[in-house]
Amino acid sequence: MKNTFGNNVSVTLFGESHGAAVGAIIDGLPAGVSVDEGFIEHQLLLRRPIGKISTPRKEADKFNIVSGVFNGKTTGTPICVLIPNENIKSGDYSEKYGKARPGHADYTAFVKYNGCEDYRGGGHFSGRITAGLVAAGAIAVDLLKNKGIYIGTHIEKCAGVCDKPFTDYKKDIEYLSTAQVPALSEEAREKMVCAIEKAAEERDSVGGVLETAVIGVPAGVGEPWFDSVESVISHALFSIPAIKGVEFGAGFSCADMLGSQMNDQFLMNNGAVATKTNNNGGINGGITNGMPLVFRCAVKPTPSIGKEQSTVDFINGEEVRLSVSGRHDPCIVHRARVVVDSIVAIALCDLLSQKFGTDWLV
Amino acid sequence: MKNTFGNNVSVTLFGESHGAAVGAIIDGLPAGVSVDEGFIEHQLLLRRPIGKISTPRKEADKFNIVSGVFNGKTTGTPICVLIPNENIKSGDYSEKYGKARPGHADYTAFVKYNGCEDYRGGGHFSGRITAGLVAAGAIAVDLLKNKGIYIGTHIEKCAGVCDKPFTDYKKDIEYLSTAQVPALSEEAREKMVCAIEKAAEERDSVGGVLETAVIGVPAGVGEPWFDSVESVISHALFSIPAIKGVEFGAGFSCADMLGSQMNDQFLMNNGAVATKTNNNGGINGGITNGMPLVFRCAVKPTPSIGKEQSTVDFINGEEVRLSVSGRHDPCIVHRARVVVDSIVAIALCDLLSQKFGTDWLV
Amino acid sequence: MKNTFGNNVSVTLFGESHGAAVGAIIDGLPAGVSVDEGFIEHQLLLRRPIGKISTPRKEADKFNIVSGVFNGKTTGTPICVLIPNENIKSGDYSEKYGKARPGHADYTAFVKYNGCEDYRGGGHFSGRITAGLVAAGAIAVDLLKNKGIYIGTHIEKCAGVCDKPFTDYKKDIEYLSTAQVPALSEEAREKMVCAIEKAAEERDSVGGVLETAVIGVPAGVGEPWFDSVESVISHALFSIPAIKGVEFGAGFSCADMLGSQMNDQFLMNNGAVATKTNNNGGINGGITNGMPLVFRCAVKPTPSIGKEQSTVDFINGEEVRLSVSGRHDPCIVHRARVVVDSIVAIALCDLLSQKFGTDWLV
Amino acid sequence: MKNTFGNNVSVTLFGESHGAAVGAIIDGLPAGVSVDEGFIEHQLLLRRPIGKISTPRKEADKFNIVSGVFNGKTTGTPICVLIPNENIKSGDYSEKYGKARPGHADYTAFVKYNGCEDYRGGGHFSGRITAGLVAAGAIAVDLLKNKGIYIGTHIEKCAGVCDKPFTDYKKDIEYLSTAQVPALSEEAREKMVCAIEKAAEERDSVGGVLETAVIGVPAGVGEPWFDSVESVISHALFSIPAIKGVEFGAGFSCADMLGSQMNDQFLMNNGAVATKTNNNGGINGGITNGMPLVFRCAVKPTPSIGKEQSTVDFINGEEVRLSVSGRHDPCIVHRARVVVDSIVAIALCDLLSQKFGTDWLV
Repeated sequence: MKNTFGNNVSVTLFGESHGAAVGAIIDGLPAGVSVDEGFIEHQLLLRRPIGKISTPRKEADKFNIVSGVFNGKTTGTPICVLIPNENIKSGDYSEKYGKARPGHADYTAFVKYNGCEDYRGGGHFSGRITAGLVAAGAIAVDLLKNKGIYIGTHIEKCAGVCDKPFTDYKKDIEYLSTAQVPALSEEAREKMVCAIEKAAEERDSVGGVLETAVIGVPAGVGEPWFDSVESVISHALFSIPAIKGVEFGAGFSCADMLGSQMNDQFLMNNGAVATKTNNNGGINGGITNGMPLVFRCAVKPTPSIGKEQSTVDFINGEEVRLSVSGRHDPCIVHRARVVVDSIVAIALCDLLSQKFGTDWLV
Repeated sequence: MKNTFGNNVSVTLFGESHGAAVGAIIDGLPAGVSVDEGFIEHQLLLRRPIGKISTPRKEADKFNIVSGVFNGKTTGTPICVLIPNENIKSGDYSEKYGKARPGHADYTAFVKYNGCEDYRGGGHFSGRITAGLVAAGAIAVDLLKNKGIYIGTHIEKCAGVCDKPFTDYKKDIEYLSTAQVPALSEEAREKMVCAIEKAAEERDSVGGVLETAVIGVPAGVGEPWFDSVESVISHALFSIPAIKGVEFGAGFSCADMLGSQMNDQFLMNNGAVATKTNNNGGINGGITNGMPLVFRCAVKPTPSIGKEQSTVDFINGEEVRLSVSGRHDPCIVHRARVVVDSIVAIALCDLLSQKFGTDWLV
Repeated sequence: MKNTFGNNVSVTLFGESHGAAVGAIIDGLPAGVSVDEGFIEHQLLLRRPIGKISTPRKEADKFNIVSGVFNGKTTGTPICVLIPNENIKSGDYSEKYGKARPGHADYTAFVKYNGCEDYRGGGHFSGRITAGLVAAGAIAVDLLKNKGIYIGTHIEKCAGVCDKPFTDYKKDIEYLSTAQVPALSEEAREKMVCAIEKAAEERDSVGGVLETAVIGVPAGVGEPWFDSVESVISHALFSIPAIKGVEFGAGFSCADMLGSQMNDQFLMNNGAVATKTNNNGGINGGITNGMPLVFRCAVKPTPSIGKEQSTVDFINGEEVRLSVSGRHDPCIVHRARVVVDSIVAIALCDLLSQKFGTDWLV
Repeated sequence: MKNTFGNNVSVTLFGESHGAAVGAIIDGLPAGVSVDEGFIEHQLLLRRPIGKISTPRKEADKFNIVSGVFNGKTTGTPICVLIPNENIKSGDYSEKYGKARPGHADYTAFVKYNGCEDYRGGGHFSGRITAGLVAAGAIAVDLLKNKGIYIGTHIEKCAGVCDKPFTDYKKDIEYLSTAQVPALSEEAREKMVCAIEKAAEERDSVGGVLETAVIGVPAGVGEPWFDSVESVISHALFSIPAIKGVEFGAGFSCADMLGSQMNDQFLMNNGAVATKTNNNGGINGGITNGMPLVFRCAVKPTPSIGKEQSTVDFINGEEVRLSVSGRHDPCIVHRARVVVDSIVAIALCDLLSQKFGTDWLV
């Protein structure tokens, strides 16, 4: 469904980097959910570029809730959030057009859209589109908290620097909810920032791995085959530009484990079924088992770099050299974090309402 | 959509391990596609257990095409393939019921289905369900070959043994299409088989990584956001039981690369745009760029092992010890291969028909 | 989605008139719903041809539940019902091929499927396909009864003979549930049968109007725009071959009414909101208001008639004369009744579970 | 999918009557389709209230294309059209709240949305929402014209006055495309206007029947069961508020016809297959046969009338009397016409692209 995701609860994205606005519609939320504009602002703040480790382009991210909210609550009808584009410099884009930035969608958009794509600033492929997603997702994140479901994501690794693992999910998630550079270890965070700054100085960029934990999801959610929790969440995550890998629980490391190591043995914990380990990331057979959902996604280094690269001019069909000028992020891992939380929140609302109905979400 | 996947071209799975039959419906294929029953048999053969590295349970996998094929060709209406279950021993399942096999869906199915699940042999969660998927997928695999699109998967790693990488995609894919243990290196294959047999002797199991390449997909296929090629393929792959990770191109290793290393620089190759490297796995911005699609999935060690484990009896709410008896696979990596090819073929038919229409697939 | 309908609860149809079998898959029903095979048989009986007013072709309609039912209850996974085709005479079809039966899908199937359609006995366009739908739908009809929701359909008009209207919904629906020719007035029923027999003698056919009432649906179900109750139910009804019109409440007669006549004025009825009239058929703004859902559909005269007609041979592109030989129904209105009830039951399960969740349906 | 309709080509509606704006997103159109803002304006003009036969509320309907259009052409990404609400008088709505207007969604919205609905001016149930649909649909209407597919709707009947039937589809459709009151007979039009004015004077309202013809759709489009052309178009039409009936070809009158009368006999017409009559409305077995698509929908009298009616105050649970004050339409049949054309155009784009691909639409 192209730019719409979800069945009972769905999100639709629209907009271009240098068009009038970007935005999102979230549909299917029940009526009566409180909409905290301060929290939406807060989430957008987490997405915003910071210091030297981000693009100097300043985006105010002023949002308007155009529909679906009345007297501070959802009305049950589609919520459209609009974020006008400001501070746009698109004067010089037509001249650049045709010189495909390596790692970007310039060339594939040209082929797909037959030369009619809005190429300014990446158009609909720009990370800017995620601003709408974050605004809409904030409502879902907030709603889930009221149901006792908490989502938190930290930078497991960035520019070669590793963070410490989750120790106390509840506390760590709370801590991460306000951290601009979401590392659990202060030392790791400082090293990451240094490494990113160093890459920026070298007109290069770095990638990383984000690790997400979700606590409070009841057991029994998800479907055996095509709506497995892994399928739905990975579908959502891979829609975020720059994500090139997704794994649940032990993920790829399971390839080197024996069954007796990988299997999460069950035990009784205060009368409830739990598991000793969580190598399956809280999911057995596509269905939640009540343990924390744990998954990771790989974020590639931002493709826009100042360093000179070889590429082609696809208009003329000739090879050229290219230094991407303009205002770029040397790293988007920290900014992608809140995008992950947002889309995961929406995907969970959809999965939960399949079983319990959308009314349950209030 | 639970047990149905795809829009223009879709597949629906049904059946239980110890029920009357398993099966699949593939819908949306245009009329006039040749259906080669020999090829379906061949694909089912690749899924079948072999030698000591698989379960001794013998499944004939005789399939009936119940609908949608006439005079050896698709009619354009739903194709239902039915595979009756034979050689079923389910006498002793009710006694085992309640003792959750670690790593399995026993417990989550119990919670989700409130004790009404068909628990015999894993029921609808059994790998047996993939037989229907492989039969239906064979038609899609075959159809794509006629359009010049070839899919091949090898075991990149299994039980700690690594295969050699793809060197000549076309040739390697052809080779893999008949290999029962799909390793490109004969030496690696032999070592893998030994390692699996060793695990079997120890009543344990091993996992691995499958790497898939698809050649011949034209540039410009896929959508920027929620129908990105990565989203659609990962959704499909994660529906296969035991898959815990999916990555495209460089995947998780991109976290340790600089942008200047990760970016695939464009070049002209006999008048066509190509890239020097393929770290993006043939996909930019969710859309194919004409390079081979390359992705990997992590297959966890089979959870059914003879070794004794701790677990709970969820009926009585008490901890128990469990040795899974019966006929089990010490490894399913080699058997999962053709399941991957099948679901990827169906997903690609769906993606291609979005742009070109289902008529294009003939 | 071609042959699949529904989101949370969905049905998929497959099969051809002269293929191995017809069948249906119903997916999304929760686990624990009792499956009464006797009731399925009963519903299939209502679909079966009777006396002189139907085709003399005898269809045993023996069904097999291939999956999704265990110990007499739904397991929560897809239920596949298979009805093998018996008593097939397809020897003489290839000779007839090309001579488009007026009013049938012969020509459109030829164009759409490019000459690869299974043309025997109407193939996938045959009313025979509805047998699978009725079998699957029986489970939904039964389930809804347990939730206090009752569906009943009578022949409002057939061959120019009008039935009396519903007077006591509950009682009338109960009466209709076992009536082979579902007219509320005995006199009307006898006249209808005579009129149908007369048409049969003249090698012609007749149509009619079916009126359905559903009681017990709570207020507040349905969506304002594209999942309005009218949209979903009409989508379902128009998928039944031969249906050419659908109207809710006063339907087309509203065109001749004033607003003051059409509007259903609200009143209090034992503390509950109700309406004096029910011109809106229990639906305001696409959402149920708690009154009985009332709608009608027009069933065209069976296109297969013995009378000679003009037509074309689309293979040779020439005009020919045609008398449709074989075993045909002079009327299918009475047989279509249970098909209507079946698909409406499935559509309602889907609409209800959107709001309340599929768990609610148990 | 609530407020989203369509698969390959889809539309999403949002907004409330007295909120900031109404709008629509159309997604799935290929890149390179010319977007004529003048034509969008023209279509919105056809929806606008006129003279004494409409509400005196003046809506400027200034639209902004927020995304998806670049250099006057579609970019292939979602097109969001926004229409800010102006001339809003909502001061007095809270006082009216609770008194359910008969025939309106006030009560059902209250039940569904639990008292959190935006009740001002009908909120999301207002006909105002169709402004967004018309703006988005204009692009689809225009696109289809370039493919030789023309859609036209006239008022077959209004307030008891009947129009003359289509005689020359092409010419009639062209004529209708600019007619503010779309009757084919001038005399009928004048009588309709008088009858509507008379109803207005009596503080009452009238309904009618719209008849639509679509020419140029190739044979072979649509699907046998759940994506039958009738299913898809009726689904779309019934989403428009006030539509209570939909019929194709002879529609409900088929109930009084014999098969020999209803069947459209085939003939050869300049080498092409055609039919003598068009009682099936251009559709056999759910698939287009190349004849004009012809269908009708019943539009109920506007429920908002000045005449006093009985109703309930659902807040207090007591019966009250109500005269709906404010600025109302005594008839919306003529205004609904362009809404019908718009949603039908979108539905056809979706159906066509299923077979031919979205690329075909350029």
